[in-house]
Amino acid sequence: MKGILIIADGLGGRPTDVNGASCLEAARTPVLDAAARRGAIGLMDPIGPGIRPGSDTAHLSLLGYDPYALYTGRGVFECLGIGMDVRAGDVCLRANFATVETRAGALVVTDRRAGRIDSGQQDLADALNKMELESVPDVSFEFRASTQHRGALRLRGPDLSRHVSENDPHEVGRPPVPFAGEAGREEAAARTAAALNELVSRGHNILRDHPVNVRRTKAGKPPANFILARGAADCPAIPSIESLYGVRGAVIAGGALYRGVALACGMTALDVPGVTGGLDTNLRAKATAAADAIATFDYVFVHIKGTDNAGHDQDAAAKTSFIERIDQEFFGELMARVDASATHIAFAGDHTTPIDFGDHTVEPVPILYVGPNVAQDASSSFGEREAGRGGLGRFSGRALPILLGYCNWAPKFGS
Amino acid sequence: MKGILIIADGLGGRPTDVNGASCLEAARTPVLDAAARRGAIGLMDPIGPGIRPGSDTAHLSLLGYDPYALYTGRGVFECLGIGMDVRAGDVCLRANFATVETRAGALVVTDRRAGRIDSGQQDLADALNKMELESVPDVSFEFRASTQHRGALRLRGPDLSRHVSENDPHEVGRPPVPFAGEAGREEAAARTAAALNELVSRGHNILRDHPVNVRRTKAGKPPANFILARGAADCPAIPSIESLYGVRGAVIAGGALYRGVALACGMTALDVPGVTGGLDTNLRAKATAAADAIATFDYVFVHIKGTDNAGHDQDAAAKTSFIERIDQEFFGELMARVDASATHIAFAGDHTTPIDFGDHTVEPVPILYVGPNVAQDASSSFGEREAGRGGLGRFSGRALPILLGYCNWAPKFGS
Repeated sequence: MKGILIIADGLGGRPTDVNGASCLEAARTPVLDAAARRGAIGLMDPIGPGIRPGSDTAHLSLLGYDPYALYTGRGVFECLGIGMDVRAGDVCLRANFATVETRAGALVVTDRRAGRIDSGQQDLADALNKMELESVPDVSFEFRASTQHRGALRLRGPDLSRHVSENDPHEVGRPPVPFAGEAGREEAAARTAAALNELVSRGHNILRDHPVNVRRTKAGKPPANFILARGAADCPAIPSIESLYGVRGAVIAGGALYRGVALACGMTALDVPGVTGGLDTNLRAKATAAADAIATFDYVFVHIKGTDNAGHDQDAAAKTSFIERIDQEFFGELMARVDASATHIAFAGDHTTPIDFGDHTVEPVPILYVGPNVAQDASSSFGEREAGRGGLGRFSGRALPILLGYCNWAPKFGS
Repeated sequence: MKGILIIADGLGGRPTDVNGASCLEAARTPVLDAAARRGAIGLMDPIGPGIRPGSDTAHLSLLGYDPYALYTGRGVFECLGIGMDVRAGDVCLRANFATVETRAGALVVTDRRAGRIDSGQQDLADALNKMELESVPDVSFEFRASTQHRGALRLRGPDLSRHVSENDPHEVGRPPVPFAGEAGREEAAARTAAALNELVSRGHNILRDHPVNVRRTKAGKPPANFILARGAADCPAIPSIESLYGVRGAVIAGGALYRGVALACGMTALDVPGVTGGLDTNLRAKATAAADAIATFDYVFVHIKGTDNAGHDQDAAAKTSFIERIDQEFFGELMARVDASATHIAFAGDHTTPIDFGDHTVEPVPILYVGPNVAQDASSSFGEREAGRGGLGRFSGRALPILLGYCNWAPKFGS
């Protein structure tokens, strides 16, 4: 038996989305509806009832972990997700290029994304990484660029702490906020803040004078001359899924965060051309890669990000049509390629992102299981309200362990 | 108000059991179906969603306890279940007679069950129990025989630990495995392993030369000349159900494990002639005894084991027909004998044991409540899929506290 877990980020919606229906209910999804008729559906609270999930905490919970026990912050998943090595003791941050300029003798952020810079980012990062920190000479760091302005930053050395604030003012026209150790935290938090403050301050001088930025300024583009960082985290103590269940899995995800969470859980990341983590991702390529991967791996986790992007953009038409593409392009391809008699498939959102609110909300999400060991319920389609009547009832998180259970892979607790 | 909780072990099944239906769905169960129409049903995850339960951990959870906090291993319930006294500090193991012979100078297990020995077991045990351990003179022990080759072993003395491995090689033709303290555990674990190694090694000499075995060998039967032991446990800190709810209960169970769990929770064990813990058990006698017992006790817990035996044997016909016997013989008798206006009845499995897999799986089990305080739902029969539409929804464990609640016995938490 093989298992495929597919999460469409922010899949869930509200009746305020489209004329009294959620985007998922409004979308035409014949392939998912047929799967719901063959399998069983229900409602899943990603973390627990009334808990509004982040994407990182929701994914830890879906994969079978208790995020309240394990979660240390987002930065470590961002670092892992773009291929950086992370060890116990490191402190990791989600970081990005921004544009600052000096006004009345003080630095002010003028573009939080440095005009979504699209070339030369790693040259800038390489220049930055040559710097040695004078205030904390035993601490080294690496900034790595990923897509556009995005990247991640890792500090390594003794006595570091994740308990530091961010420097992003979250508004243009305001100065970057100095990093600070959280009140009441250990000396290491102040030391980590000092390292970060030196890094961004002296880093600004390096970036400002770099040929990439000299060219950008000449071309009238905002220079990528400052690093904003947030989400400080240290390496969480996550036992691998293989150590817990004895199975090997792969992840197919365009977004660094999801790839990072899966890597932290011990999955192998597969690179699939055309997978972008956006609405333009190649859904057929993802389905083909997932169907291929179960020849080698026991299970595959596929993450689809576009639904959440459209939800955050409050674009009901985009979300609805992307769900229709997931149905036809992803599931159409996947169902044609897998052996239904030897494969269990689970599909859900990681949280609700309704159009009117444009951010994550607390509602449970619909979840679907289909495969030979799933008892068929009376469902005729896949959607929020139909799931409320589904044969799986309502439960919290653990979508992957339940899938592994249908595949007969769960370890017994007790005897 | 009186309560009766009936657990049919491994009751749950899968659509792969019998032509797309579980054994429970395939069985003709008019008495249970009528109870479902009068009462309400739902799905219960014995421990939690996606957790594959053992029988011991599942029962702790059904009775209202958190097995993650309390469970120490199976051996203590086996000792309690066959009437041994267990105190804090004791280490208990599930133990059984086996047959070994010397091949090329080494002992090799030739029958893990000593030919399912059916007489003379306690004589062998008595001889064994006369031995004094020389390596740990402050440790005493008792081996007690139960049915056939089965029994339990208790060590008593200072500085013992349950963190020891088993000596059962789980395959004939292989030598018994020496007991060992778990890596990284306290010195007491090594000391306990030493005590067990001396016990089984010198015990072999005693058993080998015992008249019971001399007679067995002459008769061409495998001698019961060795003790295999596993599931080391110490006494768990389980507050009694009476201390938690103020009610007194009795247990009717053929299997030592279930009787032991119930005794550990403070119930009184009732002996019912004809109750075997197998498919041949006297179900009418059990029902009669349960109906009688609620004259004396506030609640009765009845355990029926045969369903799980048939599931482990992957015998769909045996499981289906045993479920039909539970319906007609047990529930037919019970319903005729109890006062429906003053009794609440709960019926569920402790886990799923599907035919194709032949072992416990993670699926939730159907559960039924019927009695004057149970709001009737729209169910027309009792089975897995009907329970997925049932009025009780899906919840985790705690079948007994919910039953006690319907009987108005639950203590208030808060004010």
